[in-house]
Amino acid sequence: MSLLKIGIAGLGNVGEEVAYQLIKGFRVQKNLFKFELVAVSAKSKKKKRKVDVSGIRFFDDPLEMASSQDVDVIVELIGGDEGIAKKLCFSALQNNKSLITANKALIAKYGKELAELAEKNNLFFSFEASVAGGIPILKLIREGLIVNDITKLTGILNGTANYILSEMEEAEKGFEEVLTDAQNKGYAEANPAFDIDGIDAAHKTIILSALAYGKMPSLENLSIQGIRDITLNDIKYCNELGFKIKLLGNSSISKNINGVEELFCSVKPWLIGKNYGLSNVSGVINAVQIESSLAGSVMITGAGAGGEPTASAVLADIVDFANGTKLFSFGRKAYDIKNNFQTMPYKEKFKFYLRLNVVDKSGILADLTTVFKDYNISIESVIQKSNKKDKTAELVIITHKASNTVLDDALRSIIKLDGVITKPVCLNIYS
Amino acid sequence: MSLLKIGIAGLGNVGEEVAYQLIKGFRVQKNLFKFELVAVSAKSKKKKRKVDVSGIRFFDDPLEMASSQDVDVIVELIGGDEGIAKKLCFSALQNNKSLITANKALIAKYGKELAELAEKNNLFFSFEASVAGGIPILKLIREGLIVNDITKLTGILNGTANYILSEMEEAEKGFEEVLTDAQNKGYAEANPAFDIDGIDAAHKTIILSALAYGKMPSLENLSIQGIRDITLNDIKYCNELGFKIKLLGNSSISKNINGVEELFCSVKPWLIGKNYGLSNVSGVINAVQIESSLAGSVMITGAGAGGEPTASAVLADIVDFANGTKLFSFGRKAYDIKNNFQTMPYKEKFKFYLRLNVVDKSGILADLTTVFKDYNISIESVIQKSNKKDKTAELVIITHKASNTVLDDALRSIIKLDGVITKPVCLNIYS
Repeated sequence: MSLLKIGIAGLGNVGEEVAYQLIKGFRVQKNLFKFELVAVSAKSKKKKRKVDVSGIRFFDDPLEMASSQDVDVIVELIGGDEGIAKKLCFSALQNNKSLITANKALIAKYGKELAELAEKNNLFFSFEASVAGGIPILKLIREGLIVNDITKLTGILNGTANYILSEMEEAEKGFEEVLTDAQNKGYAEANPAFDIDGIDAAHKTIILSALAYGKMPSLENLSIQGIRDITLNDIKYCNELGFKIKLLGNSSISKNINGVEELFCSVKPWLIGKNYGLSNVSGVINAVQIESSLAGSVMITGAGAGGEPTASAVLADIVDFANGTKLFSFGRKAYDIKNNFQTMPYKEKFKFYLRLNVVDKSGILADLTTVFKDYNISIESVIQKSNKKDKTAELVIITHKASNTVLDDALRSIIKLDGVITKPVCLNIYS
Repeated sequence: MSLLKIGIAGLGNVGEEVAYQLIKGFRVQKNLFKFELVAVSAKSKKKKRKVDVSGIRFFDDPLEMASSQDVDVIVELIGGDEGIAKKLCFSALQNNKSLITANKALIAKYGKELAELAEKNNLFFSFEASVAGGIPILKLIREGLIVNDITKLTGILNGTANYILSEMEEAEKGFEEVLTDAQNKGYAEANPAFDIDGIDAAHKTIILSALAYGKMPSLENLSIQGIRDITLNDIKYCNELGFKIKLLGNSSISKNINGVEELFCSVKPWLIGKNYGLSNVSGVINAVQIESSLAGSVMITGAGAGGEPTASAVLADIVDFANGTKLFSFGRKAYDIKNNFQTMPYKEKFKFYLRLNVVDKSGILADLTTVFKDYNISIESVIQKSNKKDKTAELVIITHKASNTVLDDALRSIIKLDGVITKPVCLNIYS
């Protein structure tokens, strides 16, 4: 049992907790493995922290730590897909240090390259904490379901967005108000764009797709829609109709008639029927549902963020490394991962929820239904709520099944109609 | 990459599927590891199976297979805690063969001894398929949450029992009728006792406790109550009151005031509020909820039985072995597992659901409430439904929080009351 020497770069929420646990010690460490925190790097050396790291070698420059003789594994907890985090990760592997990171943006972008480098140099490289915090979802796919062909992944992958949607319903408040509350409570960042515009969930969806199918779409190629346009009224209408609105990261793979594998991948808000497990996942909780060839449907829920849950995942990687676990980071040789894999528009047909704000005048519904008729989209139900004061009306339309592309075309015509005030909100209904 | 030679003992549902997958091959096998099915043993050599094993060396006696030079790992899929399965497993490890098994009864009883033997001989020994079929729950606890102290486990661990309870509600049928249906559909065995009397769930609860706490209670020391006494009326009353009835395997650990660890462990039907995730787990699905120190609450659901899901778990063990994963079967050294660990009666107080069938005469409710008063148990609500025809009444009582021991004492007095017809049904309410 040789001693594993650990260097942590970044002592924020997660880094601080990882350092604390390593110094304090935990059950498994005492019995089975030996590791020691030998180096840290952070912006401030003196900042008051949960754990005293003054006895640990401090590097102002994390890159220096990555080339230090005395370190076996770099734990990168700085974040960001470029800049210092990227330099550090590549530098660590180039300097024959193993690498553990929680950096989803970096893995989504450079995961394959990093895995290739790790494999070439025979190093341990893992990133359990990059997706869904304390939920060991990567290990689940990579090892627990390893003999399964995975065909579909659906995840509530961003706790902030899920909290906002849950809280809007719970507290009957609008999006902006709940967002401000969430920021005050520390559930949302000062700049919440990554969370509420779906970017963070997209990074995680890309990583999950890599693990599940060996295919990594690029962020630019992903259809991404956030939750900014969802109103309290949307949530109320959906509730009445038996649905919850959830921001889902979604990816699935199937073969077309020529036997070519096609990847479907998106991040957007969906309506989910209340009988689906995912509809009951509320607040900051994350969940991932996996469809697999032998084990069938497996769903796991848990804390998707926060210092302690994320540290749990980072530390599990450290124990795996200390245990000598031979790891293909993405469950297969890096060579077999297809980078920048092209995603396809959904072929499957869905029902849709549309909410339109229109001028309350005669003929508008006739104009709308004519457009639907032109595009061969049948309507299942309509709710119209008039606002006498400003002579507008809110129209909610549930369609029968139609393809996303046809619906997008119809929407382009609808926007041009006289009397349609704002861009309609259009959400797929999960089935 | 050396070739791993596998022998399967038992070609039932699961064994057949494992053999099929090994012969057919799956993604990971082609790329990364080499294993080959070299031997099988089953009752009948000639039986028509999903996969042709006529080219594979056949052993009439699995014990002979366990001592064959040509086999690296024995996959035991015979079942049963004694007899041939036990002999085979010990014999395999004694003969320096690694061991993979799905045998929950055996692991619950002899898991520690087998782990000691495997450790002594430096062999791989795993049993992922023994709990919750296709759900990789043991890996989740043993590796994914390895740095966490686990304090509580709650599981829907028997698909048959869960199916019966769900179906009683869904189809509005009584226990016996649904059981017969389940037997016809293959969801319940001809002798359903292990499933509906909670024994199977108890085996799994014991294994989970070993993984989570390193403490294995004996089956005899476990409080076990099955679902035979649950009537359709119970389910209807609970539904009205906002609950579902679920057979739960439950275990938790905490330190008493002297710092001594106390284990609480039971299998019985509980009332669960509909806002709990576990209440939504219906049909043959299994679920396990884990309370952990860092990752918090993690819940996983999936297929708990069936050939394909269980084979998925067996094969994941095989891949782990082929991958050279160094495994402490119970997540710690076998020496550290406490066998026959004493369980304690629950100290926590719960609300209770009681259903009594009584003679419909004046004074009976007064007699009952007097008993409750004597034992200092307050009543939250009472439903009384009289049956004019046979002059009986059904009484449903929800108590305020009380301890299980006090309630048991009260029940003993209640049974003796004049006019109480049958032994009351008494269920804890989950909180």
